[in-house]
Amino acid sequence: MVKAPSSGEWLAQAARLAARARPLSRPNPAVGAVIVNDGVLVGHGWTQPGGRPHAEAMALDEAREKARGATAYVTLEPCAHDSARGPACANLLIDAGVARVVVGVGDPDPRTAGRGIAKLRAAGIEVELVDDPASRASLSGYLLQRIAGRPHITLKLAMSLDGRIALTDGTSQWITGAQARAHGHRQRAAVDAILVGGETLRADSPSLDVRLPGLEHRSPERWVLTRGAAPEGWHALSGIDDLSPLADIQYLLVEGGGGAAAAFLERDLVDSLLIYRAPIIIGAGRASVGDLGLTDLASAHGRWQRSDWRALGDDMLETYTRIR
Amino acid sequence: MVKAPSSGEWLAQAARLAARARPLSRPNPAVGAVIVNDGVLVGHGWTQPGGRPHAEAMALDEAREKARGATAYVTLEPCAHDSARGPACANLLIDAGVARVVVGVGDPDPRTAGRGIAKLRAAGIEVELVDDPASRASLSGYLLQRIAGRPHITLKLAMSLDGRIALTDGTSQWITGAQARAHGHRQRAAVDAILVGGETLRADSPSLDVRLPGLEHRSPERWVLTRGAAPEGWHALSGIDDLSPLADIQYLLVEGGGGAAAAFLERDLVDSLLIYRAPIIIGAGRASVGDLGLTDLASAHGRWQRSDWRALGDDMLETYTRIR
Repeated sequence: MVKAPSSGEWLAQAARLAARARPLSRPNPAVGAVIVNDGVLVGHGWTQPGGRPHAEAMALDEAREKARGATAYVTLEPCAHDSARGPACANLLIDAGVARVVVGVGDPDPRTAGRGIAKLRAAGIEVELVDDPASRASLSGYLLQRIAGRPHITLKLAMSLDGRIALTDGTSQWITGAQARAHGHRQRAAVDAILVGGETLRADSPSLDVRLPGLEHRSPERWVLTRGAAPEGWHALSGIDDLSPLADIQYLLVEGGGGAAAAFLERDLVDSLLIYRAPIIIGAGRASVGDLGLTDLASAHGRWQRSDWRALGDDMLETYTRIR
Repeated sequence: MVKAPSSGEWLAQAARLAARARPLSRPNPAVGAVIVNDGVLVGHGWTQPGGRPHAEAMALDEAREKARGATAYVTLEPCAHDSARGPACANLLIDAGVARVVVGVGDPDPRTAGRGIAKLRAAGIEVELVDDPASRASLSGYLLQRIAGRPHITLKLAMSLDGRIALTDGTSQWITGAQARAHGHRQRAAVDAILVGGETLRADSPSLDVRLPGLEHRSPERWVLTRGAAPEGWHALSGIDDLSPLADIQYLLVEGGGGAAAAFLERDLVDSLLIYRAPIIIGAGRASVGDLGLTDLASAHGRWQRSDWRALGDDMLETYTRIR
């Protein structure tokens, strides 16, 4: 006999569905939901492009009558407020006759913030709020936006074995190979915005688009870190002490150069590192990370946890997550 | 029924035995041998400390009467010349009544150089000379010494994610963790000599010994790249255009700093890279590799093949081999 999935496993499945919602669900959070009746998955959903329908609405639409008496697993607390764009998910769950709702993370949005759960409970539905790591990870951009007022920030570095991102004259095409570059384009397709330093923009004129068949429409907003004006089609961020211009952005990818990398790292604003490393040695060249003002090695330790590593053709990919 | 090992598999086993001979077999090459009678291994040996007995002698001593009619697999052509320290292995194999000898690599030593094989054949023994990759790899230091007049050179780099080996002020204790450092000490125990740059010696006064229980006696010769005099207990290499002072050394480990690394890399003298990488970011700091005079990225590609990668605690180890 196959063991029935646990609550955590159903939430992990909902979190995997939520990944499908990125980045097109914006401005809404990328939420995933599954509806399970008597151990059988009867509905699944994720936030649709533009934010509607919500994940719960999509899953309930699939489940129809089978939602009655079922358990709904949702990565984020169901919304409590009706809007012109659709009814509140809490009401949809109540109307569908769901018996139990398992919530991965409470919604910090002040319009919901516990009210979704309260509304469900008032209707006699059993609600379990768990602090689920997979749900939290899948909502990292939304949660940081709501709680810290800034996006989830990934720093991408494509470098040589000795940590160089370009020759001394700035030449950087190509350090990594085709597989690593394609992987980098898929990462772009999952973020809301990409940022580069002013010097990188002037030197490389990067297009920062998603050059993958079928994903061109996913090309994110382009930002440049500069006190000057942004070129056409770009947004300017004048400094990183005030990230409020990025208020609408849940996921930001910083693609260099070394100065921008150092600026974000020095203020501890980087949540994950995406390191592509080519099997070449450059020697003197442009550093991947500029001056951080580091004065002792001990303080550099204990900050980064390796979360993934794999070969991408001749190159290596390593992913690190900030330990907080 | 289990399939019988192939010649290549027996040679690979002999090559693994040869690894036990390093570095104490010096000045002799680190050779491995197995004797197989009717598909059964009846003797195994490797070059003993100081060079005698040779691998074949040790394996024959174990096989005794079972060597008669057997096949001997040896990584290097058996020696043909008697010496005051022992009889020629070719004679030992003939006297033992071996029927067939499979040789991984011919011996470039002019005292042998085909004469070992000729002597065996003259005695009616079937000899097969294969160019076996495992045998060749296990003898890389000896073969380079004989053919290129220089040791096999490994460059070790212990660095941060961004390729730094120290803070700007030179602080480098500790970048990597205990597991990586212990692995580094085991590498020291397998080489004949370690070299550091003059600046590193002056700044760090490294002891370069093998700090592993039971392996302290394996601590290799210490060399410094300097035009000046070497401190007591050290040897000086005045430049790398003339490596003849290293004539007795089969395996050299270059442990930095960036200047020494660049000097060996620029002249294409590095055969393998041993990279320990800690999950820290240093930013401005000492570069792992100094100026190589590189003017285009294309020429940096196609030189290094990743041969191993693994986690060592929080750190990563990557090994690269020069594609020649």
